[in-house]
Amino acid sequence: IDRIDWDAEAAEKGGFDTYMLKEIYEQPTALTNTLIGRLHDDTGEVNLDIGLDPQSFKRISIIACGTAYYAGLVGEYLIEQLARIPVEVDVASEYRYRNPLVSENTLAIVVSQSGETIDTLEALREAKKGGAKTLGVINAKGSSMTRELDDTLYIHAGPEIGVASTKAYTSMVGAFVMLALWLGRARGTLSDTQAKDLLHATRELPRLVEEALNPARVAEIKRVAEKYAQARDYLFLGRGVNAPTAFEGALKLKEISYIHAEGYAAGEMKHGPIALIDANLPVVVVATESHLLEKTISNVQEVRARSGKVIALLSDGDTENAQHADDVLYVPRAHEMVSPVVNAVALQLLSYFTASYLGKDVDKPRNLAKSVTVE
Amino acid sequence: IDRIDWDAEAAEKGGFDTYMLKEIYEQPTALTNTLIGRLHDDTGEVNLDIGLDPQSFKRISIIACGTAYYAGLVGEYLIEQLARIPVEVDVASEYRYRNPLVSENTLAIVVSQSGETIDTLEALREAKKGGAKTLGVINAKGSSMTRELDDTLYIHAGPEIGVASTKAYTSMVGAFVMLALWLGRARGTLSDTQAKDLLHATRELPRLVEEALNPARVAEIKRVAEKYAQARDYLFLGRGVNAPTAFEGALKLKEISYIHAEGYAAGEMKHGPIALIDANLPVVVVATESHLLEKTISNVQEVRARSGKVIALLSDGDTENAQHADDVLYVPRAHEMVSPVVNAVALQLLSYFTASYLGKDVDKPRNLAKSVTVE
Repeated sequence: IDRIDWDAEAAEKGGFDTYMLKEIYEQPTALTNTLIGRLHDDTGEVNLDIGLDPQSFKRISIIACGTAYYAGLVGEYLIEQLARIPVEVDVASEYRYRNPLVSENTLAIVVSQSGETIDTLEALREAKKGGAKTLGVINAKGSSMTRELDDTLYIHAGPEIGVASTKAYTSMVGAFVMLALWLGRARGTLSDTQAKDLLHATRELPRLVEEALNPARVAEIKRVAEKYAQARDYLFLGRGVNAPTAFEGALKLKEISYIHAEGYAAGEMKHGPIALIDANLPVVVVATESHLLEKTISNVQEVRARSGKVIALLSDGDTENAQHADDVLYVPRAHEMVSPVVNAVALQLLSYFTASYLGKDVDKPRNLAKSVTVE
Repeated sequence: IDRIDWDAEAAEKGGFDTYMLKEIYEQPTALTNTLIGRLHDDTGEVNLDIGLDPQSFKRISIIACGTAYYAGLVGEYLIEQLARIPVEVDVASEYRYRNPLVSENTLAIVVSQSGETIDTLEALREAKKGGAKTLGVINAKGSSMTRELDDTLYIHAGPEIGVASTKAYTSMVGAFVMLALWLGRARGTLSDTQAKDLLHATRELPRLVEEALNPARVAEIKRVAEKYAQARDYLFLGRGVNAPTAFEGALKLKEISYIHAEGYAAGEMKHGPIALIDANLPVVVVATESHLLEKTISNVQEVRARSGKVIALLSDGDTENAQHADDVLYVPRAHEMVSPVVNAVALQLLSYFTASYLGKDVDKPRNLAKSVTVE
């Protein structure tokens, strides 16, 4: 019976050593499923089949926990930039106890892979009490939240078994790109050209993530992960739409390798965390193509001036900035607004190979549960 | 000449070994100066002499860096709870580059000890461009920001020389308590009784901070600091109005001891950082009197169930919850809304004694500048 179970599990892992690695590789498919049937290239419109009036909201409140919270931070950036509506993001365990400011003009968006996270569910109930319209960005069909929401934008990422979220995260971010497009088009803040550009960039995501998973890139990430696997601490830095990429990269490493990794907005480093930097501290910097790239590189130089080790995520072909890094992870070029999806993949693999090298159980990290249904 | 300089410096330190310790002990005086002449017990009103119409704002945007950012997070909580206006807090280096959402109905509050922090100054200019009304919470008179602001609420904390901010932080939080009172009274969200209660609690702050600095408490903090000084990592947890107290406590330890400390909203711990917990990880939990105390204690129990070492900040007399902690730092009881000021003092001392024990230069920590006037 043991052997049969093991075989069944091996079969479920589809030839991968772990669910997590399988799910990392499922991302092109998961993203395709997130996007499919929802993008209309000819008009630059998205069809999300959401029964809420996108022009009725004066404020948006995004509520989530853990990895979903970081997807929400990307969503905040995208919606504010593309649809010009004020967005606030809260961790659910804080939101539910703070007598939140909500009105009928508030759209509360809850983000949860399982749709069962108790703090998020209770936060949703708080938002409803205040009269908010509610929308879910959720993976699991028919979950508790979906029964209480006004509407749900399913991410269709498929079952996620690994405790550390990977494909659900990138699909959530993909969903937020579409939400920002939907809101921006309906509210007239996005021109036809901008919308079509962004829609095109979004459609490219499954292909770009596939490309981010090509064997040569993965081998290089593995090499870098193993080079720094003995580090006790890690910093992750990013700016703008990729600040949350840094936060999520740090969370992933913390969750499965137990290395104390922390994410920071790169410009905030000099207000504290820079004191930590010495020759033993690897600093991962998300420095892909962006209107803030020059600023980010100047942060990289501050790290190196203090003997910190820089692992830079650079866009393909950026050999110029490679000189500022100890190690470079090249990622496929993407439109800045959708780049968090592509960049996340490299950081997932970095965490994965670090934890594997250290012999950790990546699918079931200590102390963590897949879906936190207790407070 | 060297000797004369040294004597001059020693004199300036007023008998303390370091500026930082001197400034920690100056907090009762600094707070008195922050509050003096501004509180009217008979009416429950504050007089802040601010030439802006408190009823004209639909949104408040607080912008700051480092320690001042955490003071801003306390401000967000206070203003949202007491005056029911939506508040967003941004790190200045992100705000200035994100084409922020601002209108004539936005009040932008910048927070800076020096009034010279370049990112905050540039963020202020961005906010003004969008038409926001602007207010500063600032220590240094006649600084660059004050010349560009519509109005300034000086914190009057006196010169701060130690690079790691102490008295400026508690005075900033004191200023935000008064701002929340001012807004809440003007907008009718605070009753007479609530306002008088809070005003009374605010007036108590210098005395409570004096009490927080009594020799027996300080000796106990020193003992606990030295007990855990060899730790490589630290977690700081708090909830509600004291979540930022945890963040600031972690920042302080990071800045001067170079121990990798990280702050988290306590309820968010189970979504990631709980994986870090083992017998080598001290976890400081702000668990003073609060409507969320029971929830916080349940987080404490989660830490201990994973063999984490708990250092609990408890209110005087709370012997019941002491059983859940490895070490207890008792702090004077304060009204929940002003408790971040009192609680911060214990965490400043914890960092101070840790760094001193490790032989670090607490006044001039490596890599850090007092006022960051470059990007």
